[in-house]
Amino acid sequence: MLEKIKSPNDVKKLSIAQLQELAEDVRKRILQVTAITGGHVAPSLGATDIAVALLKMFDPLEDRIVWDVGHQAYAYKILTGRNQHFDTLRQFKGLSGFNNIFESKYDAFGVGHSSTSISAALGIATAKEMLGKKGRTIAIIGDGALTGGMAFEALNHVGHVQKDMIVILNDNNFSISKNVGALQAYLTNILVSKPYNATKNLIYEFVQRLPQRIRRRVILSARTLEENMINTLAPNIIFEDLGFKYLGPIDGHDIPRMIRIFNNIKNNLTGPIFVHIVTQKGKGYEYAEDDAARFHGLGPYEIKTGRSKKKKAETYSKVFGNTMCKLAAENKNIVAITAAMTDGTGLSEFAEKYPNQFFDVGIAEQHAVTFAAGLAVQGVKPFVAIYSTFLQRALDQVIHDVALQKLPVVFCLDRAGLVGEDGPTHHGVFDLSFLNFVPNLIILSPANAQELILMLEFAGSYQKGPVVIRYPRGSALYIDNKNKPIEIGKSEVVHSGKDLAIIGVGDAFNDAEIIYKKLLDEMPGYKPYLINPRFIKPIDLELLTTLEKKVQTIITIENNALIGGFGSILKSHFANTNIKIYSFGIPDEFIEHGSVSQLKNKIGISADKLTKKIISILK
Amino acid sequence: MLEKIKSPNDVKKLSIAQLQELAEDVRKRILQVTAITGGHVAPSLGATDIAVALLKMFDPLEDRIVWDVGHQAYAYKILTGRNQHFDTLRQFKGLSGFNNIFESKYDAFGVGHSSTSISAALGIATAKEMLGKKGRTIAIIGDGALTGGMAFEALNHVGHVQKDMIVILNDNNFSISKNVGALQAYLTNILVSKPYNATKNLIYEFVQRLPQRIRRRVILSARTLEENMINTLAPNIIFEDLGFKYLGPIDGHDIPRMIRIFNNIKNNLTGPIFVHIVTQKGKGYEYAEDDAARFHGLGPYEIKTGRSKKKKAETYSKVFGNTMCKLAAENKNIVAITAAMTDGTGLSEFAEKYPNQFFDVGIAEQHAVTFAAGLAVQGVKPFVAIYSTFLQRALDQVIHDVALQKLPVVFCLDRAGLVGEDGPTHHGVFDLSFLNFVPNLIILSPANAQELILMLEFAGSYQKGPVVIRYPRGSALYIDNKNKPIEIGKSEVVHSGKDLAIIGVGDAFNDAEIIYKKLLDEMPGYKPYLINPRFIKPIDLELLTTLEKKVQTIITIENNALIGGFGSILKSHFANTNIKIYSFGIPDEFIEHGSVSQLKNKIGISADKLTKKIISILK
Repeated sequence: MLEKIKSPNDVKKLSIAQLQELAEDVRKRILQVTAITGGHVAPSLGATDIAVALLKMFDPLEDRIVWDVGHQAYAYKILTGRNQHFDTLRQFKGLSGFNNIFESKYDAFGVGHSSTSISAALGIATAKEMLGKKGRTIAIIGDGALTGGMAFEALNHVGHVQKDMIVILNDNNFSISKNVGALQAYLTNILVSKPYNATKNLIYEFVQRLPQRIRRRVILSARTLEENMINTLAPNIIFEDLGFKYLGPIDGHDIPRMIRIFNNIKNNLTGPIFVHIVTQKGKGYEYAEDDAARFHGLGPYEIKTGRSKKKKAETYSKVFGNTMCKLAAENKNIVAITAAMTDGTGLSEFAEKYPNQFFDVGIAEQHAVTFAAGLAVQGVKPFVAIYSTFLQRALDQVIHDVALQKLPVVFCLDRAGLVGEDGPTHHGVFDLSFLNFVPNLIILSPANAQELILMLEFAGSYQKGPVVIRYPRGSALYIDNKNKPIEIGKSEVVHSGKDLAIIGVGDAFNDAEIIYKKLLDEMPGYKPYLINPRFIKPIDLELLTTLEKKVQTIITIENNALIGGFGSILKSHFANTNIKIYSFGIPDEFIEHGSVSQLKNKIGISADKLTKKIISILK
Repeated sequence: MLEKIKSPNDVKKLSIAQLQELAEDVRKRILQVTAITGGHVAPSLGATDIAVALLKMFDPLEDRIVWDVGHQAYAYKILTGRNQHFDTLRQFKGLSGFNNIFESKYDAFGVGHSSTSISAALGIATAKEMLGKKGRTIAIIGDGALTGGMAFEALNHVGHVQKDMIVILNDNNFSISKNVGALQAYLTNILVSKPYNATKNLIYEFVQRLPQRIRRRVILSARTLEENMINTLAPNIIFEDLGFKYLGPIDGHDIPRMIRIFNNIKNNLTGPIFVHIVTQKGKGYEYAEDDAARFHGLGPYEIKTGRSKKKKAETYSKVFGNTMCKLAAENKNIVAITAAMTDGTGLSEFAEKYPNQFFDVGIAEQHAVTFAAGLAVQGVKPFVAIYSTFLQRALDQVIHDVALQKLPVVFCLDRAGLVGEDGPTHHGVFDLSFLNFVPNLIILSPANAQELILMLEFAGSYQKGPVVIRYPRGSALYIDNKNKPIEIGKSEVVHSGKDLAIIGVGDAFNDAEIIYKKLLDEMPGYKPYLINPRFIKPIDLELLTTLEKKVQTIITIENNALIGGFGSILKSHFANTNIKIYSFGIPDEFIEHGSVSQLKNKIGISADKLTKKIISILK
């Protein structure tokens, strides 16, 4: 059936049976492609039927559709003119893994981080009204994303202004890790009170079949009836308290039923509508249904067995998780906090072994940071594990609640630097820029796995203020030589030299080392310094004083934006000296998706390209 | 009565009548001091009775008390050993206008920005449990602050983990501006359903008087009774849905009643308790009661008449507001968005004149930014007016939802630079550092009022991407000469010269001009450039090329952190030239409170001190 769909208009022409067949085809297509490319398999399988039903009933150009996070939107991509290119998913120059307004006119809003869809949709709905445009506006948000504070901020605003818009809750009782929070318990409570809602929905459906002329009057009566029912049969509906009309819960794999509901909304209801749809993550593919956590996002896999094709190498996340277990065994005052990323940050084992020292606060980075500050002010030692880009959500809390109070919170920033296929919304290339200027922070970045362990141990025993440790996505590098212990503000001078210093920050140190070796080969006579700075803040002033005497040129390499990054700190330091500094890192632009090596090559910061550049500078 | 209170323990000894007298004394003391120092008068008057009742029933060292924002906590300060120094409120080296852990052991957590108290209190409660400490933990949060997303994130977590803690909602139906949002309507709905709650509270109070041995059984029965009542008499209680025990609404000026409730909580209730207290902002002082918006925060005033002592000069906020009115008159597609700061950002007149183009989203900066992005993606032109430090709450949204999508949103950052008496949580000295590195942003800063107008006009017609305009707190400066029109990336070279260039960013340009004139006097022969850069991003490359040929030394002055600020951008640009650059701005530390001139003097960036430094550099 899928081969017939050239544009979303083609979906409208299909019968119910054909739509169901289409959904199956789309799921097969998702599996076929993601088995090779990897991707967010389970969320997109779960939302396939919703996408089909939405496209049957709504016009994605007139009725704008905003998919929260966007990794649930593969089916939508396939059905909106992108099936032919779908095998380029998440590949360099191929389709993005998220919605992207530059990729397709059917993508109403670019996404990537959680909990933005209701805000964006309200903006769109408001603008459409102002500009006299037609159509509804629809946000589809997961139950996990709904715990993000900004989703609540948006609900509060929507309920107040009473704009025509539809919020679809894609409730799979599962965000990325298993969901947590009082709201989740509440949603479950709604599900178990289904009889009430079933009755309510029957009334709506009955009304829909009435002739137009008496429909309105019956709706009004039904509303009164419904309100009375709320007080007797139903659990409280928070969303109604906030000014929404609530419909649900509805089976998110029952296409005809969703179509009836959407049709009813389209023809009979105005104002803010909240549609509670219940789906199964990974729907239709047994391995994804059984292990939705692994299939949330993964690399290439074998469709037949569900097995990942590449044996997963030990990641920095895993090194972090293991070290946390070790630290917790030694110190009962150590706790780990994650914002719905237990697996991703490597804390699964910790969560199991030390449940009383583990806190998953939901997708709620702001709360995570201030909660940690509250723990620290009383003498508990919190490690907050948040991906680099997600900490952008909690900058204010890092500044005010932690740094200003000099509280000994440890921030463990996974996914620092380029992350590859997840693209611009996920590249952790800004953290040094948005943390360097924060007073009282100590910022470290390890060049290898052993160093990460040392830094975590250091941070665990440091009590005078906050510590940030940033480390990259992907395989942990173990090296032969033994790292020296961590001393505040002290770099590791791996090779002493003269004339030239090469400094590589964090994992970029390994590129620096490659370049160092090539320079030894290709520029005989040169004896450069090779330096792993370890500390981005405080900077190693003693070493800088030495360098000022010993070298004329410094090369810095980092996986952070050049503006505000490590290189810029050095340039400021040496501004009024004769030392020449050449900094390499992320230029002032958003970096697309692709493999890390493709991206480094494109930007010109692969070890090869850098070697050539540096040789030409030295000559 | 107040003179008897040396420490909070003395409050415990007082009778009800004495406590009521004490509250009156405290209010008088607040008026007496703030009439001279200025401050947050109305919030603190409103929360005085709560502070008295809390200190009667709880021990602030054992039962930690977290005041959201902290500007409601003057009474608490006065009653916890700080009465003697209270006349130094908000003065240089005096008491902070907010709670501060470095100021007093009775301040459990430092505050300043909104909506953090529940997160911090949960951290504190959790730590106390882990460490075997005794006592309750209490957060007092306003109804405005409750609309901030992180407060919801915290409620969601508290309800889930069921820690012993008390959240007191100080509901005055008024945050800083008049409150907005569906939650507010909902709270009002609770108030009008008071009969139910009255009954419920009567039951609690009855139970409290029972002998200990039968109390527990009766409580259990009462709970069942109550649950049945919810379904018949009451509005839904969202907070109960989220796992709290809800008590209220309670008159926040009825001290004996609050004491009974707190006593009941202390002796009979565990788990998360939500106490809904209703207060009047400005309570006990008729002028503050009548004009709570003005008395939210103000300068010195006459107690007898309530009149402000200084005639308020026209502020940059006002210039912004006036210009917005002009722009909206010409273009119906222009909208203004504020996060609960209609007055503060100067938008009151706009809100009145153009209600359909005005959006107050509540204390919800994250939503404000993404809502603006949604408007912009559809072709509406949003101006988002947010104080510099409050934008720290929405960095992720600025990056992802606006900059990445190149949407023409205008960010109007009031209170950029040192703000004076509000201190470290409010000094807008980081915005250039956390925005400079964001790709696709244009960043401007005006040196005077006319230039702000020009920049707003420029931003209003610029459609290719986002624009940030940052301007300071306080009186707008009008100058004689006519500003040249704004051209992207072009500085204003106010005086050409040679050898030396003095560049002052935004309002620091005016210091630069003073210094320039002094140099002409004191260093005859020198003919420096005097430059107003206007654009921090993109930087004026053409001018920099000229300067490279013409000068040996550049002085930069800015009201931003040196790390990541304008000076650091110039230092990076000129890193490998012979030009010497000396940058002056905010050092790498948090700046205390005090008048702006005291603070500039302390840091060494007053025009006088800078002139001396620069002369010594030049010699």
